[in-house]
Amino acid sequence: MTEVLIPRAVRATGDTSPPAHRQGASRSAPTTLRIAEIFGPTIQGEGALIGEPTVFVRAGGCDYRCSWCDSLHAVDSRYRDTWAPMATDEIWQEVTRLSGGQPLTVSLSGGNPAIQNFAPLIALGKEAGYRFACETQGSISQPWFAALDTLVLSPKPPSSGHRVDWQKFDHCLLAARGCDQIVLKIVIFDDCDYDWAKAVAHRYPDLPLYLQPGNPEVDPETPVDLTAATERLHWLIEKVTADRWFVPRVLPQLHVLVWGNKRGV
Amino acid sequence: MTEVLIPRAVRATGDTSPPAHRQGASRSAPTTLRIAEIFGPTIQGEGALIGEPTVFVRAGGCDYRCSWCDSLHAVDSRYRDTWAPMATDEIWQEVTRLSGGQPLTVSLSGGNPAIQNFAPLIALGKEAGYRFACETQGSISQPWFAALDTLVLSPKPPSSGHRVDWQKFDHCLLAARGCDQIVLKIVIFDDCDYDWAKAVAHRYPDLPLYLQPGNPEVDPETPVDLTAATERLHWLIEKVTADRWFVPRVLPQLHVLVWGNKRGV
Repeated sequence: MTEVLIPRAVRATGDTSPPAHRQGASRSAPTTLRIAEIFGPTIQGEGALIGEPTVFVRAGGCDYRCSWCDSLHAVDSRYRDTWAPMATDEIWQEVTRLSGGQPLTVSLSGGNPAIQNFAPLIALGKEAGYRFACETQGSISQPWFAALDTLVLSPKPPSSGHRVDWQKFDHCLLAARGCDQIVLKIVIFDDCDYDWAKAVAHRYPDLPLYLQPGNPEVDPETPVDLTAATERLHWLIEKVTADRWFVPRVLPQLHVLVWGNKRGV
Repeated sequence: MTEVLIPRAVRATGDTSPPAHRQGASRSAPTTLRIAEIFGPTIQGEGALIGEPTVFVRAGGCDYRCSWCDSLHAVDSRYRDTWAPMATDEIWQEVTRLSGGQPLTVSLSGGNPAIQNFAPLIALGKEAGYRFACETQGSISQPWFAALDTLVLSPKPPSSGHRVDWQKFDHCLLAARGCDQIVLKIVIFDDCDYDWAKAVAHRYPDLPLYLQPGNPEVDPETPVDLTAATERLHWLIEKVTADRWFVPRVLPQLHVLVWGNKRGV
């Protein structure tokens, strides 16, 4: 455990002071994060960056428990044992190993990555030409949102069982000023979610909006029914076009269509 | 035949001079275009605007004959009888009817839409708040490229049987100066196409690049093999990531996954 608290770069030189570029974000002890998984490169399967080559850093821990969560292994504390405590430098080394040192987009997901401090990782990565995206529900704001290239705010609709605290959500938007691209992504399971998404779009008319049909089949061991998945997309497209609501883009979870619910792709 | 040459808006007032907003683009007789189909609203299934609610205006006629063309009904002259000669105002009326007068993106596709003069249609539509995208191979340039919101240049790879004339292609880029978004989209059938796409990316490092796997199943009457289609996407994702070529986005033809090769969706 002590081992992973000491960044490898520091260990190598024997110098225990944090590197200059990390001092601003991490003044005291090196940050240790709980990481559920790091995988890639693969393509982003959802939303504004769909198709973009990406390495995913999935944070462990979440302040939400959505009824249909498809990432419980990064959310529920019964999986806590599987979350690795990793120093920023260790995460960064894994990202560079997976990407062969070729800059690409790193997506911070979860769980809710906004629980933890990714500022030092973003600083390290950006220095090397990597881009950073983060997906969060907008319940916790972080100063490092402003350093991202893309912030995907994904407020959870009624079917999740949660109610959005819009004051906290607006704090996230404020914190993200300076971020190149801020977008909304809303998962739609039913008509009620759909109507709610329209109200959210009305509240934030300047934010690009992405809708995606919900995926009720979240067991990684059960093969995804591709026909059912495409029918859900079809349903949502029909709904938007029949309604002549031409504001949102409608996209599937592409990775589910390609790989089912398999993890690490 | 004479009927469709006279724009309805003009006919209604008895005034035979073109409306003021169209005079610049169409000084003499009203433009008549050959239109293979107008359909939507549906979502854009490919490339930079994937997921975007769109009405498609598919032009009839093409200067290419790609070996794997999936739109022969808009390309081959044996289908010429099915292409409606339509005045700009007639096309515009159909677009507004389909979209219920709610502004959205109009995609000019084909065939090669750059054979014909879409300037008057773009002028009419933009006045009403519609956005315009055009997809063309880049073999013919048009002044109206500059009035588009999105120009998708889709140079055809070796498997098409065509060789790109890069001088003509560069003319298209010059003509499009002023267009908000210019992107490249390349269809990949095999390793040779893939290597060619890398060379094209090298030639145009500033243009966002979208790759999509080729679709050899183009018969609208034959159901698409979803597994085969997702496998082709999988192959291309593997190729890009194994190669650590993180420049292009990799996307499927989403409409083929959702609707097969059915037309008009």
